[in-house]
Amino acid sequence: MVEPRVLVLGARGLVGATLLEVLLERGIRGAIGLEKSTDYVPRRDDVAFLAVSAGASRLLAGSALAAGARVVDCSSAFRDDDAVPLVVPEVNSRELHRDPAPRLVASPNCSATMLVVGIEPLRSAFGLQHLSVATYQAVSGAGRAAVEELESETRRALDGMPAAPRVYPQSCAFNVFPHESPIDAATLCNEEEHKLVIESRRLWSMPRLSIDATCARVPVRRAHCQAVIATLARSASLAEVRAALASARGVELLPDDGAAVASARTATGRDHVQVSRVRWAQSELEQPESARRRVALWLACDQLRKGAATNAVQIAAELAWIEPR
Amino acid sequence: MVEPRVLVLGARGLVGATLLEVLLERGIRGAIGLEKSTDYVPRRDDVAFLAVSAGASRLLAGSALAAGARVVDCSSAFRDDDAVPLVVPEVNSRELHRDPAPRLVASPNCSATMLVVGIEPLRSAFGLQHLSVATYQAVSGAGRAAVEELESETRRALDGMPAAPRVYPQSCAFNVFPHESPIDAATLCNEEEHKLVIESRRLWSMPRLSIDATCARVPVRRAHCQAVIATLARSASLAEVRAALASARGVELLPDDGAAVASARTATGRDHVQVSRVRWAQSELEQPESARRRVALWLACDQLRKGAATNAVQIAAELAWIEPR
Repeated sequence: MVEPRVLVLGARGLVGATLLEVLLERGIRGAIGLEKSTDYVPRRDDVAFLAVSAGASRLLAGSALAAGARVVDCSSAFRDDDAVPLVVPEVNSRELHRDPAPRLVASPNCSATMLVVGIEPLRSAFGLQHLSVATYQAVSGAGRAAVEELESETRRALDGMPAAPRVYPQSCAFNVFPHESPIDAATLCNEEEHKLVIESRRLWSMPRLSIDATCARVPVRRAHCQAVIATLARSASLAEVRAALASARGVELLPDDGAAVASARTATGRDHVQVSRVRWAQSELEQPESARRRVALWLACDQLRKGAATNAVQIAAELAWIEPR
Repeated sequence: MVEPRVLVLGARGLVGATLLEVLLERGIRGAIGLEKSTDYVPRRDDVAFLAVSAGASRLLAGSALAAGARVVDCSSAFRDDDAVPLVVPEVNSRELHRDPAPRLVASPNCSATMLVVGIEPLRSAFGLQHLSVATYQAVSGAGRAAVEELESETRRALDGMPAAPRVYPQSCAFNVFPHESPIDAATLCNEEEHKLVIESRRLWSMPRLSIDATCARVPVRRAHCQAVIATLARSASLAEVRAALASARGVELLPDDGAAVASARTATGRDHVQVSRVRWAQSELEQPESARRRVALWLACDQLRKGAATNAVQIAAELAWIEPR
């Protein structure tokens, strides 16, 4: 393999900075972080990770591909483009091994990535009929300014000063509110809920999978949680469900309570999707065990790592564009 | 009416302090707050609000009733006792008007109260087949020490100091984790999830209503949120659903986004259960409107007021034990 030039575009953002961190941890030395994407002059031997806005991604991906470079895009620019593979390696790495090999791959929205990694062991073993998801999303999904606002607003609240939010419509300090993305007038879903459904369906190649999502922000700096109820297509015992999760790639099964239960804190800095509280949905308990199909789970995931940077690096590694340790 | 002696037992706790606040706001002057319940010598003309532990409530209620006093209990002591009415006035005030009139009434768990108030307009108009609930619960449900811990842990986190939790098993600062109540070995539900199901069924006199709940803590000082999907028994239009909510007692319908969307902050200090994001569950959108029955909603409620103190005061008022403004 010719040694590629590895670049991270948008290196000053949270995803960009995390990309550089993950690359370095995995032994990819000399990755170049570019803060201003207008400085980028693409070359044929480039592997470029785009951690910029969807608009900037469209421009940059075009010029990079024209120069013969290879691109992993972390924005939403290509996630609904059928010509561009949308990939979570634990779920649909086959999309990377088509002929001709892709030169542009999209990495999904963080909420969709954590959901499909956490649920894939159940889907592949028992099939999936329905998903119901409520999210508890860290403010850092909205970027560095949002984390700074959480800290400054929290200090103001602790000091008894009035709220002064700028990034979010309400102060995020000691507050919980529905996700701030725009609401579609026809469906009344917000954009995050829409992405979660559309991208999960695409990753699983299940275009009609029934998914209900409610997305909310919580005053957390990093890592999302999700309360999920998965309706399996075939019955299974809870022991079988746990065994499938315990042996799955990318999943870490944690205890159900105490200091070790999956949480925003336990997930921060980790690459696995953490799972706790695997149990039958309460209303299933009145059915005989053989008829139970609705499993409740609690997921936690560092949305900047597996939800973005780690997933992008895994895609490039799976394509052998880079050779991490 | 003979002027009663109104007392709040457990006046130093958050619920007790809120009871004194709500009573004063409603023109009940001279309510006596007792910090140490062992100081309480019951009298026949007493109206006693118990904001103490379940164990203390059992002792105090017994001696108060023996003296001829009337009691509203805010603990879990009598919530599953069929001989004691469990009441949310917006939902089942008929339980208060039985003959003989009750002299001891239980006020439900905060999560159950907000759920039944928010969903009652749909249940009474269209029937209810199933509820799926994910909670976002403020730390103050675990008392004053928990609020102090949230503040001290948050200051430590902002100053880069290591976490030192004592009340909660993990630091609650900038963190989300499943509710800390004990997990039942048979069902794998935690106690909060169990209470939410059992008490909602009892309040609605629907002992077999199918409810799935996941309860989690969020780093919020006050007010809970809930993401709910309600499956109606009969079909209805979304306009009918909204109209039912808009005219319901105890419910405040708020906009879906921006500074006014229902949140922990908008609900704090209010007596209504606030509702936003009333919409069809996403997977219903593929059905014709006449076949849609699953409504998604976002609820927010001050769990110390309507979730505890306000509800208890309403019970006493409905029984004409006190005459608030």
